[in-house]
Amino acid sequence: MSDFAIGVDIGGTNTKFGIVDQQGNILIQDRMLTNAGDDVQDFIDELHQKLLPMIEKSGGIEKFIGIGVGAPNGNFYSGNIEYAANLKWKGIIPFSKLTSEKFGLPVKLTNDANAAAMGEMKYGCAKGMKHFITITLGTGVGSGIVIDGNIVLGHDGFAGELGHTIIRPGGRLHKGTGIRGTLESYASATGVRETALEMLSDNPTIKSTLREVSINDLTSHTVFEAAIKGDKIANDIFDYTGQILGEALANFVMFSSPEAIVLFGGLTKAGELILNPTKKAMEAMLVENFKNKVKILFSDLKEADAAILGASALVW
Amino acid sequence: MSDFAIGVDIGGTNTKFGIVDQQGNILIQDRMLTNAGDDVQDFIDELHQKLLPMIEKSGGIEKFIGIGVGAPNGNFYSGNIEYAANLKWKGIIPFSKLTSEKFGLPVKLTNDANAAAMGEMKYGCAKGMKHFITITLGTGVGSGIVIDGNIVLGHDGFAGELGHTIIRPGGRLHKGTGIRGTLESYASATGVRETALEMLSDNPTIKSTLREVSINDLTSHTVFEAAIKGDKIANDIFDYTGQILGEALANFVMFSSPEAIVLFGGLTKAGELILNPTKKAMEAMLVENFKNKVKILFSDLKEADAAILGASALVW
Repeated sequence: MSDFAIGVDIGGTNTKFGIVDQQGNILIQDRMLTNAGDDVQDFIDELHQKLLPMIEKSGGIEKFIGIGVGAPNGNFYSGNIEYAANLKWKGIIPFSKLTSEKFGLPVKLTNDANAAAMGEMKYGCAKGMKHFITITLGTGVGSGIVIDGNIVLGHDGFAGELGHTIIRPGGRLHKGTGIRGTLESYASATGVRETALEMLSDNPTIKSTLREVSINDLTSHTVFEAAIKGDKIANDIFDYTGQILGEALANFVMFSSPEAIVLFGGLTKAGELILNPTKKAMEAMLVENFKNKVKILFSDLKEADAAILGASALVW
Repeated sequence: MSDFAIGVDIGGTNTKFGIVDQQGNILIQDRMLTNAGDDVQDFIDELHQKLLPMIEKSGGIEKFIGIGVGAPNGNFYSGNIEYAANLKWKGIIPFSKLTSEKFGLPVKLTNDANAAAMGEMKYGCAKGMKHFITITLGTGVGSGIVIDGNIVLGHDGFAGELGHTIIRPGGRLHKGTGIRGTLESYASATGVRETALEMLSDNPTIKSTLREVSINDLTSHTVFEAAIKGDKIANDIFDYTGQILGEALANFVMFSSPEAIVLFGGLTKAGELILNPTKKAMEAMLVENFKNKVKILFSDLKEADAAILGASALVW
């Protein structure tokens, strides 16, 4: 009888991991730098070294059902991490196989956004829902889509890249992909910063406390701080971001007709400043069948927890 | 042992129906006007009257497993036709229940675009595929989405309204929905006609044989005829339509990562004139993971057949 699972969330900078019971309690957790070593084997060795005492403390390896891993470009079907732009490990990395060999446990891998969606479904605000979409509004825009209670993987395991869908054709250039007008260029922390720079430059006569912030310090958080103090440009920035996000959400709703859209990540800290314009724009763009039906929710899981929990949920 | 199913395709003008065996052969078929009577019961009575001799000829009702129906706004979960704009029957019509009572057979209902997708999956060019999307480019733009071998219905049965997704924010007004910039306003027969009128008016100095066509006779077919004869504006119209359709397809691919997109309906008669710009635009908008993977196919089922076959496939 297995009591515990291990959840691992590999991010561009940090990797978080923890031991989780079936009720979704994270019993112990820790973190390490993702790119400290050059090689993926160095990474797995360090992860093993850090997890081993945690495993022993929990009653030994035979108490564990397996390891679930969320990683950028993690492919559930192949168990490989494939061409992840933010990781040092280039090309196709057989991550599940290598990790399973090291730990002697089954390993399930998926991309980080899908892991977060699993966390919401099993332990978060999408508990009991069979149709929902999670959107991460962080440095980038990630997404996990659940239909009929299953994560949508597509024919090759790469489904659910909603941050790269086009919502302003010919619009802002995405430096990473070279494609113009995609959601990620607007509805991410990076996007909000760019919108701020554009609006400040386009409206030189409108007073704003954001003009006193150095360009380096101008972040979605600074914009939020200014907005709650009533700064007009800062509020316009969230309205604009919400307008674009809402239109994109309407498109997603008309694709899979979910019960809810769960938002999480840094931008959600702006609360109603981002939620209200998003809801308004989404409803305005929906045809009759979909209006006033779809909930937009903020995740109530702590961000680090959601990723560890979601990854661990892969193996139950 | 059941040998046959009945497939019924309810359209805005005509209703087509036929008797289908399990191999997908349509043994007998006929059609009737959808809106001849005022009441849905009149419609079901006439359908019964027309089908009864066909059923007798095939060995009687005990040879039949059931009736599958595709209809605008047909809801698989409820068996109701709900608020269909193009039908005389207003409000919520318990179509499956009424039809089942009349025939003494189980009835399965879904929307017309989903029925067409079923037909492609069971008998058409998506045979054997578990992940694909069908797009109807007809008077409007319909869609059926298949993930893991199942039609995507969403939490309420209304999923898959891709014709209403926004691809040119603030663009052309859709008279039916009041929403601007949706795919249907461009990539339908109606949309091509509007594009033609716009382009002819915006480019008064460019010669075009389309200027000799009366406004009433200007259709996607006239544009096609002119385009194959080398008319510049006619060719530009297809390039423009393909550009917008291709961008929309890229968005759909990044949602569900299908193996193929199957196009059918009137516009596909333009062949490579529409296919080439569509493919080019789609590939240009896809991020790396999806490039050069997704096939765009033209349906090889006859349009009337696909709908009857697809509807019948619901009951096997």
